[in-house]
Amino acid sequence: MNVGIYIYENAEVLDFSGPFEVLSTANRLGNKNWNVFLVSEKHGLTQARGGYPINSHFSFEDHPDIDVLIVVGGIHTEELKKSNVISWVSKVADRSMKVASVCTGAFILAEAKLLDGLTVTTHWEDLSDLKSAYPKLNVVNNRRWVSQGKYITSGGISAGIDMSLHLVSELANLGLATETAKQMEYDWQKNT
Amino acid sequence: MNVGIYIYENAEVLDFSGPFEVLSTANRLGNKNWNVFLVSEKHGLTQARGGYPINSHFSFEDHPDIDVLIVVGGIHTEELKKSNVISWVSKVADRSMKVASVCTGAFILAEAKLLDGLTVTTHWEDLSDLKSAYPKLNVVNNRRWVSQGKYITSGGISAGIDMSLHLVSELANLGLATETAKQMEYDWQKNT
Repeated sequence: MNVGIYIYENAEVLDFSGPFEVLSTANRLGNKNWNVFLVSEKHGLTQARGGYPINSHFSFEDHPDIDVLIVVGGIHTEELKKSNVISWVSKVADRSMKVASVCTGAFILAEAKLLDGLTVTTHWEDLSDLKSAYPKLNVVNNRRWVSQGKYITSGGISAGIDMSLHLVSELANLGLATETAKQMEYDWQKNT
Repeated sequence: MNVGIYIYENAEVLDFSGPFEVLSTANRLGNKNWNVFLVSEKHGLTQARGGYPINSHFSFEDHPDIDVLIVVGGIHTEELKKSNVISWVSKVADRSMKVASVCTGAFILAEAKLLDGLTVTTHWEDLSDLKSAYPKLNVVNNRRWVSQGKYITSGGISAGIDMSLHLVSELANLGLATETAKQMEYDWQKNT
C-alpha cells in the first residue's frame, strides 16, 4: 500500500511529520508492507514553515500510484491558486482509496471540489473562512477528525496525529493503532 | 537566541520535528528572535527513521553558537560509538544555557557524561537499559520530562513536544507556551 503525503513551501512541519511518524511506525510494528512517502510539485528542497529543510521522495511527475493521499496545511493560500496542484490533487484523489487532510489542507481538498456535501473540519482559527469560502461544506468544530468514508478531515496541526492513528485503525486494526500510540508515547485523542 | 537540534541517520522523525514545530511556532507567535535550526555531523541529506529525507541547516563545522541544545532519539546506538559526536555534544553542552534530550537522546547525553548524578528519563522501552549502562544516573519513569535546571530529559517521541512547551515556558513564559499549545491544537501534558 502506498501512502503519499503532499508537501509544499511553508507546509506546517507537524502536519506532515506527525502522519509520517504514525504511519511509518505502524508499518514497522505491524510488519506491514506500507510505503510511506512525501510528494512535492517538483524535486529538490522544500522549505516548510519556519525554514525547515525537507526533501520529498517523489515529484508530481514520478510518484507511484497513491492508495492513501494526505494533504497537509500550513500557509496553504498559494496552493489554492495553482491549477496544476488542484488538478493533481483531484486526479490522485479520484484513484485513491482514502483521502485525508490535516489542518488547512481541507481548503485544498475543498478547492478541488472533493468535499462538497460532506461534514468536515479544519484548524480552529480557519473554521469560519472554510465555511464562507466553500458554502457546500458542512463545517464542524470541536472534533479532532471527521471521517466520511473515503474522505477524512482533521483539525489543526497535532490533530493530524490523532487522525493518522484512526487511519491505522481503518487500514489495519485498532490494536495496531493503539500499539503505535503507545510506542510514540502519544495520548491518542479519539472522537467522542 | 540560537536553538540547535542535533539530527542523524535514523533519528526518530517526531523527536526533532515536534520540538522544531513548538519552538518555531512560539518564536512566530511571541515575536521572539529565536533562530531554530537543525545540525548534523556533515552537510547533505540525512535519512531519518522510516526513510524521511531531511536536510540540516548546519554541520558540526559551521553552526553558530548554540544557546539551547536538543539531542534527539531514534536508533541512537551508532551515535554512541562516534567519538567526534560525543565530544561535539560535550563541547556544545558546556557552552549552552540549556541542554535537552528527547527519547533515547538521553543515552547520547549520558555517554558524554553530562547526566551523572541527575534524575533523568527516556523512552519507556529503554529505561532499564539506560539505568544499567549508566549507573550514576537516577532514572525515573512515568514522567513526560524531568528538568534539572540546565539539563532536561524527556520520555519517548511525543513527550518531546511536552518538554519543548516546558522549554518555551522557561525561555519566555507560561503564557506563550500555552498559546503555542493552543495554536498546535496540542493537549499539553504537564508533569504532575
